[in-house]
Amino acid sequence: MTPLQQQGALCKAAGRTLATAGTTRKNEALSAIAEILSERQDEWLAANAADVAAAKEAGMIPSMLDRLTLTPQRVADIVSAVRQVIALPDPVGRVDRMETRPNGLIIGRRRVPLGVIAIIFEARPNVTVDAAVLCLKSGNACILRGGKEAIRSNRCVAELMRKALASVGLPEDCVYLISDTSHETATELMHLDGYVDVLIPRGGAGLIRAVAKEASVPVIRTGEGVCHIYVDDEADLDMAAEILYNAKCSRPSVCNAVECVLVHQAIAEEFWRRALPLLDRHHVELRADEAALRLLGSRAVLAATSDWDAEYDDYILAVRTVNGMEEAVSFINDHGTGHSEAIMTTNYFRAQRFLDAVDAAAVYVNASTRFTDGGEFGLGAEIGISTQKMHARGPMGLEELTSCKYVVYGEGQVR
Amino acid sequence: MTPLQQQGALCKAAGRTLATAGTTRKNEALSAIAEILSERQDEWLAANAADVAAAKEAGMIPSMLDRLTLTPQRVADIVSAVRQVIALPDPVGRVDRMETRPNGLIIGRRRVPLGVIAIIFEARPNVTVDAAVLCLKSGNACILRGGKEAIRSNRCVAELMRKALASVGLPEDCVYLISDTSHETATELMHLDGYVDVLIPRGGAGLIRAVAKEASVPVIRTGEGVCHIYVDDEADLDMAAEILYNAKCSRPSVCNAVECVLVHQAIAEEFWRRALPLLDRHHVELRADEAALRLLGSRAVLAATSDWDAEYDDYILAVRTVNGMEEAVSFINDHGTGHSEAIMTTNYFRAQRFLDAVDAAAVYVNASTRFTDGGEFGLGAEIGISTQKMHARGPMGLEELTSCKYVVYGEGQVR
Repeated sequence: MTPLQQQGALCKAAGRTLATAGTTRKNEALSAIAEILSERQDEWLAANAADVAAAKEAGMIPSMLDRLTLTPQRVADIVSAVRQVIALPDPVGRVDRMETRPNGLIIGRRRVPLGVIAIIFEARPNVTVDAAVLCLKSGNACILRGGKEAIRSNRCVAELMRKALASVGLPEDCVYLISDTSHETATELMHLDGYVDVLIPRGGAGLIRAVAKEASVPVIRTGEGVCHIYVDDEADLDMAAEILYNAKCSRPSVCNAVECVLVHQAIAEEFWRRALPLLDRHHVELRADEAALRLLGSRAVLAATSDWDAEYDDYILAVRTVNGMEEAVSFINDHGTGHSEAIMTTNYFRAQRFLDAVDAAAVYVNASTRFTDGGEFGLGAEIGISTQKMHARGPMGLEELTSCKYVVYGEGQVR
Repeated sequence: MTPLQQQGALCKAAGRTLATAGTTRKNEALSAIAEILSERQDEWLAANAADVAAAKEAGMIPSMLDRLTLTPQRVADIVSAVRQVIALPDPVGRVDRMETRPNGLIIGRRRVPLGVIAIIFEARPNVTVDAAVLCLKSGNACILRGGKEAIRSNRCVAELMRKALASVGLPEDCVYLISDTSHETATELMHLDGYVDVLIPRGGAGLIRAVAKEASVPVIRTGEGVCHIYVDDEADLDMAAEILYNAKCSRPSVCNAVECVLVHQAIAEEFWRRALPLLDRHHVELRADEAALRLLGSRAVLAATSDWDAEYDDYILAVRTVNGMEEAVSFINDHGTGHSEAIMTTNYFRAQRFLDAVDAAAVYVNASTRFTDGGEFGLGAEIGISTQKMHARGPMGLEELTSCKYVVYGEGQVR
């Protein structure tokens, strides 16, 4: 066994203890984590300051530096997020489909933890705590592998969380951080079959695709977001313009931001009269097909083929002209990533048809795609937004971090 | 694009049509399949006779030949199974978690088909129909790849099912059989990313492990069954002996048959006095640890290390002596395949602890492991028994062949 396999075995054993620890004990562990992070935040902030200094030295760009940096306020926000998870209902142990069969067997399906969840993420130190806490609450041990830029912060906070676990009598190995940030350990983690029940990559599209391609353990793909808004010829155009503006500009770096607008040709001119002044506020770059270019003139550039599949995560918007809803639906099904898709229409039948025919985790009528989020959907905190169909789809809350088992109470039945 | 990718694209498009076809239309298709299989069974039986003749020529063993052979009675059973699926409730379109959020958005989670399901199976012609029908009812297109020994039967029945689909106005490509049974096409199917949403291997442990290792599309592992029965020192020993006999001998070739019995040392002698006469009826070979061997004498042989992980699928039973329930639980968690595990006890607390602590798809108290089955569990027909934790665990009925999407009804909300 390699050292990582040995550690995997320890995490698996810790997960088995945690699986039957009960909600009260798990909440005690989360409280202990919240307390130790508050009380000993100076250690965490100091480790983070060293990470930030090294990153500056290495020439990290300002937006990345900002993500890496912890402040007392950010620590307070993270602690408050931990307390919110304590308040969420525990999915583990819930039983459904319970019934007495004709032969007298009593059979029910009980929610159980997945076991060991591995998470590969980039240089955001808050993810370390968020992810660990959601795993713990749902009864799972976790193996964390963060970016090398945040390694000092992560080592410190992982150690604090392990101390908190021990303080309530739970195994420290319920949380394990891989402190070697080499490419080799990440690859080994992706092949830790038998110890890792699911691997969730959190980060940019490049990371996610690389993990999905390489891993032999089960992976949940999250956060790939090429989202569309279709503006129908029967849309409320003022509403459509406001929604497009919100979906593009409120936070362009996130996965539920819109990347491409499909505009019905019959109302395109009128629509752009309303939408352009809004998009101009953020100088949104428009990459348009030829029909749209005729309307938008020098305000846009001609789109390249690659623009129809691009996740810009920036103030850039692809613009395409369509002849009707069915064309929009086909285009979305061919070019979307199955994340969040919206129709703007006042027509009842088209609204219903769009919801039926578009194949995505979240489909919207007359609302911004930006709402695809565990909190907004009422699931509480989320560990990511699944864009695959297997196991979980859309925002993944605590329930999505569980599996099930059938429990069967007999009195001597044979078949 | 390769020919199989082109076919994958056709199946994906067919699946999108089927996804919104509605229950009535899908049931019409299943009725048409039941009818055409009855009316034109002579064609199917003739094709099967040719398969059987070729297999005999090639020296196929009798038990395999029996599985391959269709008779009018077996066709009638298959048709009757199709009619049972028509009667099952359609999971597609069911909505849960629907609520109005504080901002007025109405959000619900709707069941939708997975899309395209690929199934690789061995030489049982009934599987071709069973699998296709479950996929169709749950709104999924399917790509079938059966064993070469049944290729004539499969080509015939796939063509009949495609005609039935066309007769009710659904795309023929909702069912596609890969008629080239070379190893290369199977491998290509395992890598048909973008067209296959899930691949389910149905067959022996060797097939399943090979597919899980090779495939880049998502796989659901089914039917690996190293199942245990633990006989506690507080068991009802007559009941325990009857259950062990049933779990081993009622149908040893299936995945829910028991392979290993763990016997508490304190009652081992008494237990074997009851169990041996039953097992002797089928001359069950016992492979025992040293402690058990002292009791069983010449009735058993010494187990090798490999016996503790063996799926015999035969009248063979591994026998191990334990000092108590916790030892049994650890042994099961280390050596089981997570299929079906049972405790025989009259002790309430141990029963509850076993159900909690054993990590398997189905955990039993005082009943035979042979009940792990979609029909017995009340799910109706099943496509297999999942031994993994992701997506589905235990018997997989229609609901397990679906995913979900969030539908969001807005009136102009922005975030």
